[in-house]
Amino acid sequence: MPEVVFPLDSNKKFTDQQIVGHNRWHPDIPAQVRVKPGDVFRVDCREWFDGAIQNDDSAEDILHAPLLSVHTLSGPIAVEGAEPGDLLIVDIVDVGPIPQEDSGPLAGQGWGYTGIFAKANGGSFLTDQFPDAYKVIWDFRGQVATSRHVPGVSFTGIIHPGLMGTAPSAELLAKWNAREQALIDTDPDRVPPLALPPNPDSAILGSLSGAEFDRVAAEAARTAPPRENGGNQDIKNLSKGTRIFYPVFVDGAKLSVGDLHFSQGDGEITFCGAIEMGGFIDLHVDLIKGGMQTYGVSENAIFMPGNTEPQYSQWLAFSGTSVTLDGEQRYLDSHLSYQRACLHAINYLTKFGYTPEQGYMILGAAPIEGRLSGVVDIPNSCSTVYLPTAIFDFDVRPGPGGPHQIDPGQGVPKASF
Amino acid sequence: MPEVVFPLDSNKKFTDQQIVGHNRWHPDIPAQVRVKPGDVFRVDCREWFDGAIQNDDSAEDILHAPLLSVHTLSGPIAVEGAEPGDLLIVDIVDVGPIPQEDSGPLAGQGWGYTGIFAKANGGSFLTDQFPDAYKVIWDFRGQVATSRHVPGVSFTGIIHPGLMGTAPSAELLAKWNAREQALIDTDPDRVPPLALPPNPDSAILGSLSGAEFDRVAAEAARTAPPRENGGNQDIKNLSKGTRIFYPVFVDGAKLSVGDLHFSQGDGEITFCGAIEMGGFIDLHVDLIKGGMQTYGVSENAIFMPGNTEPQYSQWLAFSGTSVTLDGEQRYLDSHLSYQRACLHAINYLTKFGYTPEQGYMILGAAPIEGRLSGVVDIPNSCSTVYLPTAIFDFDVRPGPGGPHQIDPGQGVPKASF
Amino acid sequence: MPEVVFPLDSNKKFTDQQIVGHNRWHPDIPAQVRVKPGDVFRVDCREWFDGAIQNDDSAEDILHAPLLSVHTLSGPIAVEGAEPGDLLIVDIVDVGPIPQEDSGPLAGQGWGYTGIFAKANGGSFLTDQFPDAYKVIWDFRGQVATSRHVPGVSFTGIIHPGLMGTAPSAELLAKWNAREQALIDTDPDRVPPLALPPNPDSAILGSLSGAEFDRVAAEAARTAPPRENGGNQDIKNLSKGTRIFYPVFVDGAKLSVGDLHFSQGDGEITFCGAIEMGGFIDLHVDLIKGGMQTYGVSENAIFMPGNTEPQYSQWLAFSGTSVTLDGEQRYLDSHLSYQRACLHAINYLTKFGYTPEQGYMILGAAPIEGRLSGVVDIPNSCSTVYLPTAIFDFDVRPGPGGPHQIDPGQGVPKASF
Amino acid sequence: MPEVVFPLDSNKKFTDQQIVGHNRWHPDIPAQVRVKPGDVFRVDCREWFDGAIQNDDSAEDILHAPLLSVHTLSGPIAVEGAEPGDLLIVDIVDVGPIPQEDSGPLAGQGWGYTGIFAKANGGSFLTDQFPDAYKVIWDFRGQVATSRHVPGVSFTGIIHPGLMGTAPSAELLAKWNAREQALIDTDPDRVPPLALPPNPDSAILGSLSGAEFDRVAAEAARTAPPRENGGNQDIKNLSKGTRIFYPVFVDGAKLSVGDLHFSQGDGEITFCGAIEMGGFIDLHVDLIKGGMQTYGVSENAIFMPGNTEPQYSQWLAFSGTSVTLDGEQRYLDSHLSYQRACLHAINYLTKFGYTPEQGYMILGAAPIEGRLSGVVDIPNSCSTVYLPTAIFDFDVRPGPGGPHQIDPGQGVPKASF
Repeated sequence: MPEVVFPLDSNKKFTDQQIVGHNRWHPDIPAQVRVKPGDVFRVDCREWFDGAIQNDDSAEDILHAPLLSVHTLSGPIAVEGAEPGDLLIVDIVDVGPIPQEDSGPLAGQGWGYTGIFAKANGGSFLTDQFPDAYKVIWDFRGQVATSRHVPGVSFTGIIHPGLMGTAPSAELLAKWNAREQALIDTDPDRVPPLALPPNPDSAILGSLSGAEFDRVAAEAARTAPPRENGGNQDIKNLSKGTRIFYPVFVDGAKLSVGDLHFSQGDGEITFCGAIEMGGFIDLHVDLIKGGMQTYGVSENAIFMPGNTEPQYSQWLAFSGTSVTLDGEQRYLDSHLSYQRACLHAINYLTKFGYTPEQGYMILGAAPIEGRLSGVVDIPNSCSTVYLPTAIFDFDVRPGPGGPHQIDPGQGVPKASF
Repeated sequence: MPEVVFPLDSNKKFTDQQIVGHNRWHPDIPAQVRVKPGDVFRVDCREWFDGAIQNDDSAEDILHAPLLSVHTLSGPIAVEGAEPGDLLIVDIVDVGPIPQEDSGPLAGQGWGYTGIFAKANGGSFLTDQFPDAYKVIWDFRGQVATSRHVPGVSFTGIIHPGLMGTAPSAELLAKWNAREQALIDTDPDRVPPLALPPNPDSAILGSLSGAEFDRVAAEAARTAPPRENGGNQDIKNLSKGTRIFYPVFVDGAKLSVGDLHFSQGDGEITFCGAIEMGGFIDLHVDLIKGGMQTYGVSENAIFMPGNTEPQYSQWLAFSGTSVTLDGEQRYLDSHLSYQRACLHAINYLTKFGYTPEQGYMILGAAPIEGRLSGVVDIPNSCSTVYLPTAIFDFDVRPGPGGPHQIDPGQGVPKASF
Repeated sequence: MPEVVFPLDSNKKFTDQQIVGHNRWHPDIPAQVRVKPGDVFRVDCREWFDGAIQNDDSAEDILHAPLLSVHTLSGPIAVEGAEPGDLLIVDIVDVGPIPQEDSGPLAGQGWGYTGIFAKANGGSFLTDQFPDAYKVIWDFRGQVATSRHVPGVSFTGIIHPGLMGTAPSAELLAKWNAREQALIDTDPDRVPPLALPPNPDSAILGSLSGAEFDRVAAEAARTAPPRENGGNQDIKNLSKGTRIFYPVFVDGAKLSVGDLHFSQGDGEITFCGAIEMGGFIDLHVDLIKGGMQTYGVSENAIFMPGNTEPQYSQWLAFSGTSVTLDGEQRYLDSHLSYQRACLHAINYLTKFGYTPEQGYMILGAAPIEGRLSGVVDIPNSCSTVYLPTAIFDFDVRPGPGGPHQIDPGQGVPKASF
Repeated sequence: MPEVVFPLDSNKKFTDQQIVGHNRWHPDIPAQVRVKPGDVFRVDCREWFDGAIQNDDSAEDILHAPLLSVHTLSGPIAVEGAEPGDLLIVDIVDVGPIPQEDSGPLAGQGWGYTGIFAKANGGSFLTDQFPDAYKVIWDFRGQVATSRHVPGVSFTGIIHPGLMGTAPSAELLAKWNAREQALIDTDPDRVPPLALPPNPDSAILGSLSGAEFDRVAAEAARTAPPRENGGNQDIKNLSKGTRIFYPVFVDGAKLSVGDLHFSQGDGEITFCGAIEMGGFIDLHVDLIKGGMQTYGVSENAIFMPGNTEPQYSQWLAFSGTSVTLDGEQRYLDSHLSYQRACLHAINYLTKFGYTPEQGYMILGAAPIEGRLSGVVDIPNSCSTVYLPTAIFDFDVRPGPGGPHQIDPGQGVPKASF
């Protein structure tokens, strides 16, 4: 086991740990950990809601999840010698659930959850069709996930960090805040909101305190979106063995990581989210000095996925176009066409006995693939979603005999609101 | 070789063939070919511009391409016993360039082309950055493509039909026309246009003539977009061995196919388009009676890709978010985030000596993958584009030595206009 | 289509063709075809028994197959500039059944066969268990094979040439003849024989005639075994897109090719053999001058397989050790342990209703993998054979419900003798 | 972490542990651990030489390795309800090096070794060419292995247990002893020996003691070879996610496991062996009652490999035939043809600057594939060995520029003897 530079105790809250992490982006959150290029080290990561979600059959905790306090990030970690303009090489040496803890009340202790936010609480990709709060619990056996709430499926998780990135410079942060506020201002009362402005409430800023805490908390960016620094990219392919190249915007790079996922489908369409868990990540870091200019990577990470992702060779795929459910034609809207493809897949699964919520959860948690198949054929884009047939215990393909009927069991817990 | 039910002579124009196909969608275009469930048969397909594009070093032909006459589709093919409500099973038994014709003036005779439309002529996915008309020629050696206009790359083509589908019912056609016209009406003078309304000019309608031709030509839908019937989906994974399930809207299903591609990246981002070619496709058809209801597939094709797609195990991936190049924040716009990811990839390739146009052409023609990685993290979606490193003759990965420099050669032909 | 430098007419015997090939190895068989480094060209290939095997339900033709006349090779093809000591690069640009001929009496016209020789007639890998002559017919649909004699399986063929190689030098040929005769001499009356000595009977030697024919026929090596020049390697992974490097022993290299297979399992355990067919192969050639010394490749081909082999992600594997069926312990005998693994697989398949012969035929024809798993653990080697589960129409995995029962149908034709 | 039913302390010898395992096969070694069908549990495993091999630059420890004491197996583990005739389902839930111990003197603590035995001490697959004792040390970073003794290569390990199996019945054990002694008797003084007879010296038999120990020690089979019970199969594909089906010969099945490998090439050709390490394995067990008869699996394991093995898409392959280096023709000897293929690969690698020993070590430790390509083409079998090109830091393919030259560095340590 590499040296644990950022340890977490599963029995303590995120703010009571030996080293306190952060849940906002700001250049002035101090690095409390230092590593050198070439180092390999372990970082413990907290599940993104810091233990608020329980291993039970109720979705009330999802409905009342503390949205202001996410994501509980481990870091910042300073890399010696890193300067603005460099590319920070980060190798994901290993990543997994909480080691040596196979049961317990914290997601990552042998189990994880997938939630869907209620529309009033952030919503999800298909919030108009699924406006309530839902939750399913997944049990881990090695790298395989199954759920008492979703019978008939089991799949090899594609474990990855949902969120990793470097600190923004002051200039970059200011740019984020300006452009996101401008968007919010176009419809400030929208539910769910268009974006999340800085909010000192529930801010966690590492070792900061006093006036400096207040200043930074007022300015610091929320961690929900991916941005130029990487951040909450939710790319399921950042699996073990992946090499990522992050732009460096501040001295020391100030790397942070969190929001580990046991598995996820492309898009993390349920929003809350993949199969969420706490755990560990072992990283190796290095630098390409001046690499942002040399390779033209001034923003957003580039990466090379690992070579041990679960292999499936047979897929059942669904397509969608950019026409709304009400029949309105939109112009090359790939977001919409992916929604339609996902809805087609969910509808298909209901013919086998699944509830729509179960189908939705499968798409959110299993290693499905979402592709931008056609983006130019005016006015319709074409998106596609691919389900590996081998994750189902039964034959999920269309055939002359009609769909096999599963017993949906207790189904997906839903919040009463 | 299966029986050729729809033959084409490479030396004759599309309208001079033994059986004349069509370039519009309408239920009343008569089927001139009949097949039975269980049949395997060959259909010749014309390259989508009917030979207007030459194997030369000029893009003038792309600038002046006859947009009103696309796509030159082979069909309609009536399937005995097919009725509205059925699912039509179509197996792609084989598909390839024009057999036994390895050289000649027609795309598909040992070569193909990728074009980018000028903004005034339809544009492309990145039309703001690439407003002119461009063309590259690809040479085929077996299943491998190389280009005198794009040095340093060679790749195994993922051959597929860009367009296949069943005929719409009259009701469905009316719905298409209404919703697309409504979109056009929101900005009727836009360049490029938002959608393409019915246009009798250059319409080809099989065996129709006279008043019936005029009536149908005035109503028939253009073939550019994918729609409920499948159509121009441009899904690169409809490769050999793929099984597709199409909804049936009219008696006989009236299957049509065309727009063959030797290879394509996800999205067909160059618009004109993939590696375009004429060729042949061998199909097997069958029916699931009442399958639309049984499986909940009321629109858009579902499919199972073949198992001989080219395998690559190392990828270099680029990410993008939904912020415009001008810094404007958009709300969960996956179309935009894919544009940004593609622009990042192109910019990266220029560091190795490629011109931006060469980089763009690689993304359009090679078997790259475009994924909807994050679609819920307000306000930024995250899209990713994956390049197989093995298609480059040199090491395309970032490293301490800096990028290898290629000689871009003559580069990509551009129209003078 | 590349230029056909070695054409074959399906309606004529091998010896009546425009260019007559050969069925023996000798440096003095004249090259009648010349190509240059960089050329791409097509070679038609005859099925190895020159049409003696019929598409019927009898194995009599296998029992009486003309063993002295195999293999009907296309060549020799001289490569300009090739000299002893060079490496000849051969790219398999494409390979397939007889083009444009989907039905007919010749294997390769839409069908192929797998035979098992009777013990008295050459035997097979499991000749003690299967001492008679058997045959199954496979039908091709695109790249997929099915058989009326083996229900419940269908698989994507991994098309390849069973035999390709360069001509031996006179010295090398003499070495072959000496060492093989020495082996024969250890048990000259063995049935089946230990090796096949030169035999002028049924020899075909291209354009040779008269005394030169007689001299060469008396010396020329039979084509059954693989040797230093490549030859009958029966490597199923020489699929489309493969690059092979052959040692050159004579001026012009004198490349020959034949024995095309629609599919084969590792080992070609049925001997007669894979799915045999005639067809075509498109090749590209080039030279590495002096490459034998530079790369240390003085004998036997090295190669890089293509990247479009059929993909399967779930396998059921069987192991065997080097103990005979009679319980005798042998010392690290990987040949024996592979026999035992194959017998285990066949026995397993009989539990699902297959006859042993059907099981054997599946292993011989489907893309199974045979691996040398353990070769040092005295006294037992461990070999393994992997079956892709997806080739079966039913669930072939062990489970609590017991094996699904197929209807074996008419079964495998067997010769009456 | 599942419950650890068989714990090992890295600081204690195998015989000083809380539960003492065994290094011989015998039905009467008592099970000290009990599990139930459906259980998931952890078993710690000792590296096979119990710590005798050091992380240094000398091969003296390999020369003097305590061969009589291998393998240090964890078990027997009794499975409730298992009876002779059942199939024991074993799922490899997870497997890896010693958890949480990244450095230390025991193989498995962040490092492992590959050794080659001297000919006088057991030899190896290529002992005639490599008659001395050699050793290389591999360092682990996550799932990647590199070595200071073998520059220029790094690969993703395919972690697996080399040895796992059920206890033999008394009858089966007697059969083993009889047949192996019969083999030994054919050449009792051979070096290396043909097989290893029971030997009470260094026997470890769990909780047995006194006269019962002596009786069992005198009868118990050595663990070197794989046999009907599974045993030392050294199948590299028993990776995480694999399901294995073992025959049950005694009540409780008495499962044992050990000899973990961080990686291995097909065949484990170096004999001492793969990348050897201690570590842990998490197992899930279940039963198919009467499954041996139902599925015809009366001996040797059958298995379904996991789906997260490292993926490589480009391979360089070498072939060999059954002719000895001295030019003697052997009859269909796949063992010999694999030796020749491996020697070809090693010779090729020396052209890039590797020493022959370095080449040999790469084949022994990296995830190479060894295939039985042709087993019927008298008199030559054809075996092939496939190297993934991506494991090399340089371009290992043949090309016009000649082989890249590496610096072999200190090379492979060799024992002085």
